[in-house]
Amino acid sequence: MKVIKEISLLREALRDKRKDGSTVGFVPTMGFLHEGHQSLLKRAREENDIVVLSVFVNPIQFGPNEDFETYPRDIERDEQAAYEAGVDFIFYPSVEEMYPHKAGVSLIVNSRTNVLCGAKRPGHFDGVVTVLTKLFNIIQPDQAYFGLKDAQQVAVIDSLIRDFNIPVELVPVNTVREEDGLAKSSRNVFLSEEERQQAPAIFKSLQKARALIDSGERNPEKVIAGIKEELDSSTSGEIDYAELLSYPELERVEEIQGKIIIALAVKFSRARLIDNIIVEI
Amino acid sequence: MKVIKEISLLREALRDKRKDGSTVGFVPTMGFLHEGHQSLLKRAREENDIVVLSVFVNPIQFGPNEDFETYPRDIERDEQAAYEAGVDFIFYPSVEEMYPHKAGVSLIVNSRTNVLCGAKRPGHFDGVVTVLTKLFNIIQPDQAYFGLKDAQQVAVIDSLIRDFNIPVELVPVNTVREEDGLAKSSRNVFLSEEERQQAPAIFKSLQKARALIDSGERNPEKVIAGIKEELDSSTSGEIDYAELLSYPELERVEEIQGKIIIALAVKFSRARLIDNIIVEI
Repeated sequence: MKVIKEISLLREALRDKRKDGSTVGFVPTMGFLHEGHQSLLKRAREENDIVVLSVFVNPIQFGPNEDFETYPRDIERDEQAAYEAGVDFIFYPSVEEMYPHKAGVSLIVNSRTNVLCGAKRPGHFDGVVTVLTKLFNIIQPDQAYFGLKDAQQVAVIDSLIRDFNIPVELVPVNTVREEDGLAKSSRNVFLSEEERQQAPAIFKSLQKARALIDSGERNPEKVIAGIKEELDSSTSGEIDYAELLSYPELERVEEIQGKIIIALAVKFSRARLIDNIIVEI
Repeated sequence: MKVIKEISLLREALRDKRKDGSTVGFVPTMGFLHEGHQSLLKRAREENDIVVLSVFVNPIQFGPNEDFETYPRDIERDEQAAYEAGVDFIFYPSVEEMYPHKAGVSLIVNSRTNVLCGAKRPGHFDGVVTVLTKLFNIIQPDQAYFGLKDAQQVAVIDSLIRDFNIPVELVPVNTVREEDGLAKSSRNVFLSEEERQQAPAIFKSLQKARALIDSGERNPEKVIAGIKEELDSSTSGEIDYAELLSYPELERVEEIQGKIIIALAVKFSRARLIDNIIVEI
């Protein structure tokens, strides 16, 4: 396994490896790897000759009042985890390497963003698609792996790839959970002990929503009300949003049908957690 | 030579050809090929194993009052010219093939555009970088060839490629001229006989500007005044702009130094012609 910080050196290394027709699987991350990332790496390892992991906390996808500075970082631990997962190359660039000058051309996301996290984080997905476009152009992967925990991110990247004919296959991977149902996240470390005990209520409320739909409920408002009731009664967290939308279009629906997503964000004292389920009727 | 209209078929054909490490040179055009394009194709042919020509009149780079509908088209003649130039593949997609759905993600050009043609054609360069990003992703060329007649376009594409780390080398090619100095252009066919006789004054005025600089003039305003005088006295065309800027940054300068561009647009009755020279002191 090699850790590479320069774009030109990574390109050179991949060019050599690719000559024989080897396929490249790519897992983009902001580091501080947990089992969610491990499941992406495992899948990439199974399906490709070469696996590239990027570790880059992307400043332009954080808002001015968000946690860019305090986002958890631990490259040594990440290197160890990547090594164990069979990664071939870690791309670990500096902010300077990725953004050496003010950009003259910008990517703007116009759809699938005015809901869920996008509504609360203006410019966030512009930053996500910008860094991914750069990473795709640098690494030129055959397949790129993304966790469905950020289902809106997957929907936006699906749009990016189709709109610009990017020659990469998007592989969405199911959310990995703790035994009590809490979705794995780098931000879970910021939960207090009490909050950590309450946090599984997020997934429980989503399971309750699914049960309601399974039993025939087709009114989105009633399903959302069921979620809010469950959460309010069992956590001190504040519901940031609870929405039921079509997927991947992320449009509001009058009646539950086809493929839908039920997605939640809950604010605790030092962490804002998200989770979702996708249901097909 | 093959003419291919579908993205998937072009990708397949290029994948086969590229297996042995062949390099791909790409010349994007809106068709109606003239000797300017021929010089791009000639250069691409000399420097690459495979040459791809695209012929696509890109609707999204035309403004509502511009000449998208009447832009000259003649694919049979283009095929003949491409064949003679040794092109391997003509990519000739429909508008539907390139833009099958409303885009959810947009490219916006923020710099190098509020001058020259960009100032008069809001959104024009957004359309240019969008179609080029798509074409680069579809064709994945090693080198792409652009004429310096559209020097602002070259500056904007240079920014696009650097900002997004696009793995393609931009090759700028000098403007090809008629014997009397008029820059070759698909739009020259729209000149009346009288206008055609006057049109060489455009390049003459640029040569006059260069002579002024060579003789020591360092004041941009005086150089521009010299150009306007020359043009007003010898053509019925209306000067759309005459500017002297740094290159490729396209910023106004107080004093002529370093690398600069002197660029002109002149409106005749049915054609708006552009030309420029780049001068290094």
